[in-house]
Amino acid sequence: MTHRLDPLFNPKGVVVAGASTHPGKFGFVTLHNLLAGGFEGPVFATNRDGADVLGRPTLRSVAEVPEGEADLVVVCTPKGSVPEVLTQAADRGVRAAFLTTAGYGEAGDAGRAEQAELVALAERLGLVIAGPNGQGVISTPAKLCAQIVAPNPPPGSIGVVSQSGNLVSAFLNHSVRSGVGVSRAVSAGNAAMLEPIDYLEYFADDPATSVGLCYLEGVGDGRAFYERLRQVTRRMPVVIVKGGATGAGAKAAASHTGSMASDDRIIDGVLAQAGAVRAIGVEAAFDAAATLASQPPASGGNVVVVTTVGGWGVVAADAIARSRHLRLDPLPGDLVAAIDHLLPPRWSRNNPIDMAGGETRDTVPEVLRLVASHPATDAVLFLGLGIQSNQAALMRSGGFYPDFGLERIVDYHERQDDRYGRAAAEVSEATGKPILCATELAVTHSNNAAPAAVAATGRYCAASAERAVAALDASLSGWAGTEVRQ
Amino acid sequence: MTHRLDPLFNPKGVVVAGASTHPGKFGFVTLHNLLAGGFEGPVFATNRDGADVLGRPTLRSVAEVPEGEADLVVVCTPKGSVPEVLTQAADRGVRAAFLTTAGYGEAGDAGRAEQAELVALAERLGLVIAGPNGQGVISTPAKLCAQIVAPNPPPGSIGVVSQSGNLVSAFLNHSVRSGVGVSRAVSAGNAAMLEPIDYLEYFADDPATSVGLCYLEGVGDGRAFYERLRQVTRRMPVVIVKGGATGAGAKAAASHTGSMASDDRIIDGVLAQAGAVRAIGVEAAFDAAATLASQPPASGGNVVVVTTVGGWGVVAADAIARSRHLRLDPLPGDLVAAIDHLLPPRWSRNNPIDMAGGETRDTVPEVLRLVASHPATDAVLFLGLGIQSNQAALMRSGGFYPDFGLERIVDYHERQDDRYGRAAAEVSEATGKPILCATELAVTHSNNAAPAAVAATGRYCAASAERAVAALDASLSGWAGTEVRQ
Repeated sequence: MTHRLDPLFNPKGVVVAGASTHPGKFGFVTLHNLLAGGFEGPVFATNRDGADVLGRPTLRSVAEVPEGEADLVVVCTPKGSVPEVLTQAADRGVRAAFLTTAGYGEAGDAGRAEQAELVALAERLGLVIAGPNGQGVISTPAKLCAQIVAPNPPPGSIGVVSQSGNLVSAFLNHSVRSGVGVSRAVSAGNAAMLEPIDYLEYFADDPATSVGLCYLEGVGDGRAFYERLRQVTRRMPVVIVKGGATGAGAKAAASHTGSMASDDRIIDGVLAQAGAVRAIGVEAAFDAAATLASQPPASGGNVVVVTTVGGWGVVAADAIARSRHLRLDPLPGDLVAAIDHLLPPRWSRNNPIDMAGGETRDTVPEVLRLVASHPATDAVLFLGLGIQSNQAALMRSGGFYPDFGLERIVDYHERQDDRYGRAAAEVSEATGKPILCATELAVTHSNNAAPAAVAATGRYCAASAERAVAALDASLSGWAGTEVRQ
Repeated sequence: MTHRLDPLFNPKGVVVAGASTHPGKFGFVTLHNLLAGGFEGPVFATNRDGADVLGRPTLRSVAEVPEGEADLVVVCTPKGSVPEVLTQAADRGVRAAFLTTAGYGEAGDAGRAEQAELVALAERLGLVIAGPNGQGVISTPAKLCAQIVAPNPPPGSIGVVSQSGNLVSAFLNHSVRSGVGVSRAVSAGNAAMLEPIDYLEYFADDPATSVGLCYLEGVGDGRAFYERLRQVTRRMPVVIVKGGATGAGAKAAASHTGSMASDDRIIDGVLAQAGAVRAIGVEAAFDAAATLASQPPASGGNVVVVTTVGGWGVVAADAIARSRHLRLDPLPGDLVAAIDHLLPPRWSRNNPIDMAGGETRDTVPEVLRLVASHPATDAVLFLGLGIQSNQAALMRSGGFYPDFGLERIVDYHERQDDRYGRAAAEVSEATGKPILCATELAVTHSNNAAPAAVAATGRYCAASAERAVAALDASLSGWAGTEVRQ
C-alpha cells in the first residue's frame, strides 16, 4: 500500500508547471534545481509560449503531459491558473501538487476563501496539495530537489518540515555545513491541506527518516495535534521550534502564514507531554536533531568529558551542571586505574578527563574505549580536537612550508586529528554509547582535519561544548537550548 | 610614560628562548608563528646547541642577546632553566617575559612553591611575567604573533584575555571566521604575576582596544577585583565568561589552572555591579564582544526588525520578547506611511517589517534609512540576507552555468546581497544607530556575498537572529546568552 504522500516524496515523474525562460522566476529556478539535483525520473515542464527552458523543450499546458508518467506537479504559475493546472494534472494521473504560488491564506480574507476553494478542488480531484506559498520539497532518496531556493542537502536521515520556507533553508544550510544529511524536507507554506503533523506522521513510517525536525507556527486543532504527535514520538524523536511562542512572535506569525496564535504555555505542555523535544532557537534545534540522527541514544545522564585542553573541560562541566538531566559523576576507581596506564601522571584523574598533553593516536582511541565501555558511563563528550591541525594550517601558509620539517609535521598533525575524529565514531559504534565531539573549528574552519573526520563518519560535530551538552540533554529531557539559572 | 605591559604588547624586539629544530616543539612553533606573522622588529632565538632554526642562526643563550635590542622574551625552555633565562634576559634589557613552560601552580604543592619563587625572582629583576603555562600573546598593531598555537587573527579592536589558552584560540577562530578583529590577545596561563584584571586595565587605556573579552576562572582578591573592574568598565565594555561557575565546573577549574573556586552567586553580583557583561557560553561572549566592537551603542531597547522572509521575523520577535531589555514597539504611523511608498501593499505594515519580496537594491537601503533615522528606533535587526546568493551558488555548480542567462542572474543576485550587506553599515554610520545583520550563512557558507559584504564593512554578522538579539541585549542588560523562561 502506498501512502498518500508517496507521490510527493517518491514521485516517478515530475511536472514543473509554469517553467519560465527568465532565470529570476520561480518556474525557472525550480526546473533548474530539479535537473541540477539529478532527479532520475521523467521531468516535464510547461510554458505558456512553448519556449525552451534550460535547453529543454516544454509543453504548452499540463494537459499535454503523457498520462501516467508523472505523479507530482510543482506549481509555479500565477494564482489565476492554479485551478486549471490542478484539474489537468489530476486528469493526467498526477496525485500530488506542491504549490509555490502565494496570495492565499497569508493575504487576508479573500485569499483565505480562495485557499479553501483550492483545498475543496484538490479533494474532489483526489490530489494532495502541499503549500500554497511554500518553497518546495526535497527528497534525497529520490534525488528530488524541487525548490525555488538553495541548498540541496546531503542525504541523511533527518526529516524536516517547516511553516517557514526560510527556516527549511536554514536547517538545510546547517546540514550542508555539518554533513549530517536530510531524508526529506518540505516547506509546508500555508499548510492548507497538509499540516506539519501530516508530514511528521509520514516521516515516522518512513524507513529513510530517523528523526523529525519541525518549525511550527500554528497547530490547528490542538487536541488532535497532541494525540497525533504522541503517536509520532513513540516511533521517532521529534525536535520542534515553536514560532510565535510569545505575544510579539504570535503577532508576527499571524502576519506571516496567517496562522492563529496558540498560547505558548499550552504548547509547552503539549510538546512535553507528547514526548517531543522543544528547542529554543534554530541552531539548538538542528544541534539536537543532528545529534539524535547520528548518535546512539544515551541510556542515562552520566557524561564523561574527555578533553585535550583544560578550559573547555571547565566550560563543559558548567554546562552539564546547568543541564536538566545530565551529570558529571566522579570517575570510578577502576577507570582511573586503567587510564593511569595510558596517560602521564599529570592527567586530571577526574571527570573531566584532561589528558594534559598525553594524547596520541594510540592513547586517544584507547581512553575513549575504556571510558565508553565502562558501565558507569552513559555518554562521552570529546573536546579539544583539531587544535594541532589549526596550527598545521598556519604552517602551510606561513612562508616556510614545506621545508624545515614542516611538511612532515603538518601531515602528522592532520593524521592525528583525523584519527581522533574517526576514533570517536568507531568507539561509539563498538560500545553503543554516544560520543559527541565539539569544536568551534566545525564552523570557523570546517576543512580542519578533526571536524572533517567527524563529518566523514556521518557524525555531528557541534560548534561548542555548550551546544553539544544542550543537544545531548535534549535527548533525555525534551528541551534543547542553553538554559541558565535565573 | 610607558605602561609596564608595553614591552609585552609593543616590544621593540623579541627573544624566543628555547627555539627547537623539531617542528613539534613549542620553541619551534613560537618562532615560526612570530616570523610568519611578520613581526618587524629584531627577533632572536636561542638554542642550546646553536643549531639553525627555520634557516636562521640562533644564540646559545639569552646572555648573547645584544643589550637593549629586545624587551620581550618568550620562554619555551624546560622548567629547570627558566630562572637562568629570566636573569640573563633582564640583564640584556628585557622587561617582559611570556612563559609557556608548564608544571607550576597547576601541578600541585611543589609547583605552587616554584611559581611563587618565579614571581619573586621576576620582581627582583624588574620583569613582568605573563603565564606560566600560557599559550602566548598576540598584538596585531605590532604584528606580534608569539603563540604556540594558531590562529593569527585579523587586526581589530577586541582585547582578549583568558585563563584558558584554548579559549583564546576559540575566540581568535571566531575572529578569523567573522573578520571582526582583535587588538591584543593573551593567554594568562596560571596568572602568577599578571591576572586577567591587569590585562583588562591595560586594554582600557589602550587606543587600539575598544572592548574587552575575558575568560575568567579565579579572581584572587574578590573585593580588589570588583573595584578595579568597575573602573575598567567605565572606560570600555567588558564581556566575561566565568568558568567554574558551578560546583562541577569549579572542581574542574581547580584541576586546570590551580585557581581556587569562587562562589558563582558572588561572581554574578560582582560582575553585574561592576558593569561587565556576563556571557553564558563562549559563542555568546564572542557575539557580544564582536557586536560591541563593530556597532554604535543602542540608546534604548526598541528594536525594529527588517526582514526579507517571514519565519525569521517571527523567531526574532520571540527572541526579543524573551530578552531582558529589548522590545518590539509597534511601528509609528509616519514610518508606516513612509514605507508604504517603497514596498508593495503586501508588506507586513508591522514590526517586524516583512518586505515580502519588495526588496531591491533601491528599497532595502531606503527602508533601512527610514527605519534607523526614525526617533522611535533604537536599533535595527536586518534578516534574510544572502538567500539569493545561496541560490546563485547552486546555479554556479548546477551544470547549466553560465548559459541560459545564469551568469547574468548569478551576478545580479550577488550584487544585490553585497549591496544589502553594505547598506546596513552605511545607514548605521549615517544614523549612529546599530544595524545588526544575521544569517546562518555566516557560518555555513561564509563566502556568500551577504555575510562577506558585512565582514568587508568591518561589522559582525551573527549566525542567527536569536544570537544577534542576545548580543544586542547584552549591551543594555549586561547579560549575554539565550535566556529562556523557566
